[in-house]
Amino acid sequence: MPSISKKGQLMPQSPIRKLAPFAEQAVKDGKSIYYLNIGQPDIKTPKIALEAVKFNSLEILAYTRSEGSEDYRKKIANYYKKNNIEVTHEDIIVTTGGSEALLFAFGSVMDVDDEIIIPEPFYANYNGFSTASGVKVVPVISKIEDNFALPPIEEFEKLITPKTKAILICNPGNPTGYLYSKEEIQKLAAIVKKHDLFLIADEVYREFAYDGNTHYSIMEESGLDDNTIMIDSVSKRYSMCGARIGCLVSRNKSVMQTVLKFAQARLSPPTLAQIASEAALETPQSYFDDVIEEYVERRNTLIAELLKIEGVKVGKPKGAFYCIAELPVKNSDDFAQWLLESFDVDGETIMVAPAGGFYSTTGVGLNQIRIAYVLKKESLIKAVHILKEALKVYKD
Amino acid sequence: MPSISKKGQLMPQSPIRKLAPFAEQAVKDGKSIYYLNIGQPDIKTPKIALEAVKFNSLEILAYTRSEGSEDYRKKIANYYKKNNIEVTHEDIIVTTGGSEALLFAFGSVMDVDDEIIIPEPFYANYNGFSTASGVKVVPVISKIEDNFALPPIEEFEKLITPKTKAILICNPGNPTGYLYSKEEIQKLAAIVKKHDLFLIADEVYREFAYDGNTHYSIMEESGLDDNTIMIDSVSKRYSMCGARIGCLVSRNKSVMQTVLKFAQARLSPPTLAQIASEAALETPQSYFDDVIEEYVERRNTLIAELLKIEGVKVGKPKGAFYCIAELPVKNSDDFAQWLLESFDVDGETIMVAPAGGFYSTTGVGLNQIRIAYVLKKESLIKAVHILKEALKVYKD
Ligand SMILES: Cc1ncc(COP(=O)(O)O)c(C=O)c1O
Ligand SMILES: Cc1ncc(COP(=O)(O)O)c(C=O)c1O
Repeated sequence: MPSISKKGQLMPQSPIRKLAPFAEQAVKDGKSIYYLNIGQPDIKTPKIALEAVKFNSLEILAYTRSEGSEDYRKKIANYYKKNNIEVTHEDIIVTTGGSEALLFAFGSVMDVDDEIIIPEPFYANYNGFSTASGVKVVPVISKIEDNFALPPIEEFEKLITPKTKAILICNPGNPTGYLYSKEEIQKLAAIVKKHDLFLIADEVYREFAYDGNTHYSIMEESGLDDNTIMIDSVSKRYSMCGARIGCLVSRNKSVMQTVLKFAQARLSPPTLAQIASEAALETPQSYFDDVIEEYVERRNTLIAELLKIEGVKVGKPKGAFYCIAELPVKNSDDFAQWLLESFDVDGETIMVAPAGGFYSTTGVGLNQIRIAYVLKKESLIKAVHILKEALKVYKD
Repeated sequence: MPSISKKGQLMPQSPIRKLAPFAEQAVKDGKSIYYLNIGQPDIKTPKIALEAVKFNSLEILAYTRSEGSEDYRKKIANYYKKNNIEVTHEDIIVTTGGSEALLFAFGSVMDVDDEIIIPEPFYANYNGFSTASGVKVVPVISKIEDNFALPPIEEFEKLITPKTKAILICNPGNPTGYLYSKEEIQKLAAIVKKHDLFLIADEVYREFAYDGNTHYSIMEESGLDDNTIMIDSVSKRYSMCGARIGCLVSRNKSVMQTVLKFAQARLSPPTLAQIASEAALETPQSYFDDVIEEYVERRNTLIAELLKIEGVKVGKPKGAFYCIAELPVKNSDDFAQWLLESFDVDGETIMVAPAGGFYSTTGVGLNQIRIAYVLKKESLIKAVHILKEALKVYKD
């Protein structure tokens, strides 16, 4: 039997998806589950986006240009302008989700054995994309005690080697909910300029900034055009994760020429989803106001409820819709599995994401879980109640 | 300025798309173009597929499972059964086009510096996927004189080294239109078993077999379960290239587990397009009969017209909708560009794909072009007329 690749063997299993078989079994056994484990919001997709697809008049579902349809890219540029980001459609390549934008960014700036510095904990699939590209993740640890603020600049500089090609941040952060301040972005800008690195910012949660805080994009920093690559997506913004539309944005021409070659090899991003995404740009501000209000309420509820449980520690997220909670357990992988296999309150249990997979340092985060507050307030209250009861009886 | 990756520098430009700027300019200058350069058929997408999208009732455009929706995978398995291929939905992972299936196959079975043997000329983007994966393409040359039949087995065996991991075929072939015989598939089966290699078959043109020939899939060969990986796509079958739905099929469990990890990292294939693709499976046989009839007529017309031109050589394709034509020119890159920039007949010109990009051996195929017969018969006649006139005046 021919053997699979080393890279394939090293590919991490998604920490969010590896519990799926236990969840399926629990459902088969008649349990109901509150899914706190994935970033799939229950918020409705804007009607305007869905209707654009319903009322389209295509007779041939054809490829679009590899870089995405020009009209759509022009409208995205316009959306950015409203967000203080001055770019043209030539600085934008439409991708199949933010996921593909990340893959293209990794491929365009890094070779096998190159290094990328990422504040940890981070979006678990950064591990997957790094492994797929043969790139080494060098983590900079941010701590729950500091509410996951960026560690001091010296911590970054200590880690830079001749193999370092980029720093990657997620702003606002999944899984921490951390929102970077303008000062932090400027500090990062100074490092990447000094050391001639790329600064890749995953800003797919841009809209989700709470408590009067505003999001500051790396693309707003001047004098950084050659260094910055932004990753974006319609998935969370318009609750249309299944569209699979994102984009990569950079003013660095060689980067864009290179990304285009990767894009051409896979021909085209999805056509129907581009129609939906173009229409979604017309979503009224009131939609976002409502969504933000909803998430803030959910977050406040979730955090308040969690803090009532003895031994639970949680940061206060200022953005996105996740939080990391530290639990009085030794191994949250085992705990999460046990919740699905052996625990329920009146036939209901919860599914959470063990946080180990959000770290590349092994052994860190093992007593943490990530909770996505993508459910209604009442469900969150019930879910945290189940967590509380579970912790009372769980034995490591 | 930070530098892009070596891999990114090596990524080939798509031979089909690199002439695009000249075509755009020609259109701006008022010329009409017959596009013979891309595999984007003018055939209408089955109504049933488009309507499934129009009448869908989703309120949240959510992610599907990373491996694709289970219902859809079960129906695909059923489609294969009708095509003499016995697989279950567990042997199928839905991908974002056949393109992504290729990328996952490469990633799952090959590491940097591994080798893959591919009969040449081949689908140009195999070069792109190989470069992106750091894999070395080792070509086996098939010749226009032999109508692009598979070279003798010994030619393959000569090329096998300890680094060889797979043989990749495209059946029916883009750009040659070559349809492999059962005997050829069985010879390949014998080689991969003897040398413990993977046999990857890109069968996205399965339906397009002409003149009473039937397509024989590698998945029909028994005793080869661990070695075979099939690549498939709805793009050409239902003329829905913009859907971006394909799949990877294998009975090798480790391959499937590995591919799933790559699939999980990018979360989900497009949801709307899965709805369209699932419905497309209900397309009546009459649709295919009509389409095949249309393509056969186009092919016959195209070949007959081409053979009227002095100095033009062309193989007779038995499948797909492309042919390679040899022209009395030294460099078809220059010729194709000249056609767009400096030639027209009554304001009309043609766009063709220079064939050099379909070879990995440099310097081969420079006097060849690929023609896609994705236009109506009358347009093909006019297009070949333009080619004929052009060859009369063109000077290398
Ligand atoms: C931080 C972050 N980046 C990127 C993505 C990728 O999302 P998509 O590919 O749906 O755009 C996600 C999805 O959860 C995410 O959380
Ligand atoms: C031989 C071959 N394989 C794969 C593909 C990829 O097609 P898609 O990604 O649209 O399924 C193509 C497209 O032209 C092709 O010709």
